[in-house]
Amino acid sequence: MERIQIAENLSFSRIIHGLWRLEDWKYSSKETLELIEYCLNEGITTFDHADIYGSYLCEERFGEALSLKPSLRDKIELVTKCGIVLPSKQRPQHTSHYYNTSYEHILLSAHNSLKALKTDYIDLLLIHRPDPFMNPEEVAEAFSTLHREGKVRHFGVSNFKNHQFRMLESYLDFPLVTNQLELSPSNLENFLDGTLNLCQEKRIPPMAWSPLGGGSIFTEQDEKSLRLHATLKKVGEELGIAEIDKVIYSWLLAHPARIMPIVGSGKKERIHNAVDALNYSISTEQWFEILQSSMGHEVP
Amino acid sequence: MERIQIAENLSFSRIIHGLWRLEDWKYSSKETLELIEYCLNEGITTFDHADIYGSYLCEERFGEALSLKPSLRDKIELVTKCGIVLPSKQRPQHTSHYYNTSYEHILLSAHNSLKALKTDYIDLLLIHRPDPFMNPEEVAEAFSTLHREGKVRHFGVSNFKNHQFRMLESYLDFPLVTNQLELSPSNLENFLDGTLNLCQEKRIPPMAWSPLGGGSIFTEQDEKSLRLHATLKKVGEELGIAEIDKVIYSWLLAHPARIMPIVGSGKKERIHNAVDALNYSISTEQWFEILQSSMGHEVP
Amino acid sequence: MERIQIAENLSFSRIIHGLWRLEDWKYSSKETLELIEYCLNEGITTFDHADIYGSYLCEERFGEALSLKPSLRDKIELVTKCGIVLPSKQRPQHTSHYYNTSYEHILLSAHNSLKALKTDYIDLLLIHRPDPFMNPEEVAEAFSTLHREGKVRHFGVSNFKNHQFRMLESYLDFPLVTNQLELSPSNLENFLDGTLNLCQEKRIPPMAWSPLGGGSIFTEQDEKSLRLHATLKKVGEELGIAEIDKVIYSWLLAHPARIMPIVGSGKKERIHNAVDALNYSISTEQWFEILQSSMGHEVP
Repeated sequence: MERIQIAENLSFSRIIHGLWRLEDWKYSSKETLELIEYCLNEGITTFDHADIYGSYLCEERFGEALSLKPSLRDKIELVTKCGIVLPSKQRPQHTSHYYNTSYEHILLSAHNSLKALKTDYIDLLLIHRPDPFMNPEEVAEAFSTLHREGKVRHFGVSNFKNHQFRMLESYLDFPLVTNQLELSPSNLENFLDGTLNLCQEKRIPPMAWSPLGGGSIFTEQDEKSLRLHATLKKVGEELGIAEIDKVIYSWLLAHPARIMPIVGSGKKERIHNAVDALNYSISTEQWFEILQSSMGHEVP
Repeated sequence: MERIQIAENLSFSRIIHGLWRLEDWKYSSKETLELIEYCLNEGITTFDHADIYGSYLCEERFGEALSLKPSLRDKIELVTKCGIVLPSKQRPQHTSHYYNTSYEHILLSAHNSLKALKTDYIDLLLIHRPDPFMNPEEVAEAFSTLHREGKVRHFGVSNFKNHQFRMLESYLDFPLVTNQLELSPSNLENFLDGTLNLCQEKRIPPMAWSPLGGGSIFTEQDEKSLRLHATLKKVGEELGIAEIDKVIYSWLLAHPARIMPIVGSGKKERIHNAVDALNYSISTEQWFEILQSSMGHEVP
Repeated sequence: MERIQIAENLSFSRIIHGLWRLEDWKYSSKETLELIEYCLNEGITTFDHADIYGSYLCEERFGEALSLKPSLRDKIELVTKCGIVLPSKQRPQHTSHYYNTSYEHILLSAHNSLKALKTDYIDLLLIHRPDPFMNPEEVAEAFSTLHREGKVRHFGVSNFKNHQFRMLESYLDFPLVTNQLELSPSNLENFLDGTLNLCQEKRIPPMAWSPLGGGSIFTEQDEKSLRLHATLKKVGEELGIAEIDKVIYSWLLAHPARIMPIVGSGKKERIHNAVDALNYSISTEQWFEILQSSMGHEVP
């Protein structure tokens, strides 16, 4: 599979697997290991986590599977996130939902992730959400400490708008290597408000969360969902693609920003559809047909 | 007439003539030549085109007139645009409306413009609209090729917001020399959202399209149009100007960003009004009176 | 009291006193002097003015008080503003409300302020509002002249959005040292739209005007005001603070951007509450509780 160079010494598979619903799938460690190995066979080597996924349990489930075959660690890249505090049975000390990007919290969260994932290092650690109370000097110090100790190789952000990105980066000794963004035909915000443009300006490939738009295209009956579903179906027919999700991945993969879609499914067929989308080449005209179907009007 | 230095080796007349409705005027080549010569006599040497104007016919009409007196070519500056694809009898291969800023499309479009305008070079080529599917590396390569081959002297954009401008420029070997924007008392968007500020920050003079606001001030009966019309009339009386359009041009010309209004009229009187506006000096207080009349409220 | 380094040779008291309602208080010069001395005893040495406050009278009232004890001048820092034109009995030549940031107006306004304040120098002069008609070259020249003549030590802006800030600064020989912004739990705009982020990126401490949100939290009965009042009360109880205004100041002071709240009250108790807020330390969780109470929803 195509690989994307994230930094001098780190590359990701173009398609990334996302584990945010792992806890919902009720997989045994053996089944999770099978899922990981299926991904590897498909060429997917990059796995996306966050401390809070599954109420702080998904990293642990993944780590248990990984410990069944520790040799896999060097064949994969692990991404995780920190900075959100959620009430949870697993974190009885958390009494409300807020953000914490203090030095102490980032270090504690990274250490928890390392332990849960049963690994010595995280390939990429992201600040999960832009924090209006962020002390960028503390974030910079936390990143430096984790990097110096060999615990985290690279750092990035998620859901940052341009002003937040530029501000944080101005305090760091090294560039942020990605911005993980909601990017899908259903949600054009980051395509249109300059967030994706900054990724291109900074030459950093974005990761796309919720690339299928949370499934609304498949289930909702509102005008926009129906219109977009029909357009995706039509374009799929032109390309010889029967599956709507594959058309959506093709649409994201065609964009010159080198978007890396995160497939958040536990089903092999769904994962395969994302990988297979790499074999199709959507035209500029088709790309705009889908864009305009989502916008509900033509470009000016 | 005052001239604006666009680049080291290129200057524009402060007032620019726009040909986007040339095809509507049903002028013979001789009549178009007369219009061009009228402009030159008034001091207007810069002419604004786009490939798509008049459904891809305006450039050709202008070129036919120019071929009646080829010696005029070196006395004028030609601006044109590319990047929009429109269905048209003249382009049967176009089946829908979208943007295309690929290397191939930019080169094809520029070559078509050169042929239609019957000229060896374009003084300034603009990307017509910000393209959410833009590959900035391809745009940069296309610009470099056209520049190296002597076909286009300078490059700019139109309707770009700041994030799109900064992103594209970061890929180019030379600065963008203008941003052609909708700027008028009726449409303050680019005055207020930072787009004009970036022109000032970059020291590039903007071109103003639709400076009269598409004529709504003259014809519409809505509250804003009536209010603005009354204010323009009042300020005109104070300045000794009878024509509303002349007051509007004075308002644009007074702004320190060195706005170059594009007059899109085929009528000599209208063109003359724009040129004559250079003889009037609107005060700061009057400038704000018109601004606030458009906003419908005072500044804070 | 904690001091904030504004520039190499200038520091402000963390809490600033604001004189915009001085004229309303109907204080005698002696009473105003007492107020100034009360502030100094509390550690407040920085006083915020604008030419237009009290319809151009507040600076004069302050200057009269200062002239009763001229030795105070070197113990305080004076901030004032220019750029707004207001009709006023004190300025009969002003016939309407607009902005003027021309070279002549800035110099005239600064000279008027020096005379009214009965001082030889202003520590910090701000452009009061972003001026859509601003000629940045004239502002730069005015700043240079005032600086060269020793009349103004440092320059900044107020209410500027990022594009206006970057544009103006690109014309100056020295950095802008602050952006005075509306910042309060009631008004989160500058916390969320990137304006505060730019202060952090530029390493400049913002001044906060209307830190109590114009008092709406105390008097209004709308849902947001009631909700915010209840949350501030609750957090106050947790911290052992009985006064809502003190909780608000603590919230602002806790932010890592080094916000300097401007206390606009003539009442000693109110001023003391702001100063005393420096003794309390709001937690990250409490900070978000207040933020979310203002937003009316949780962070994502």
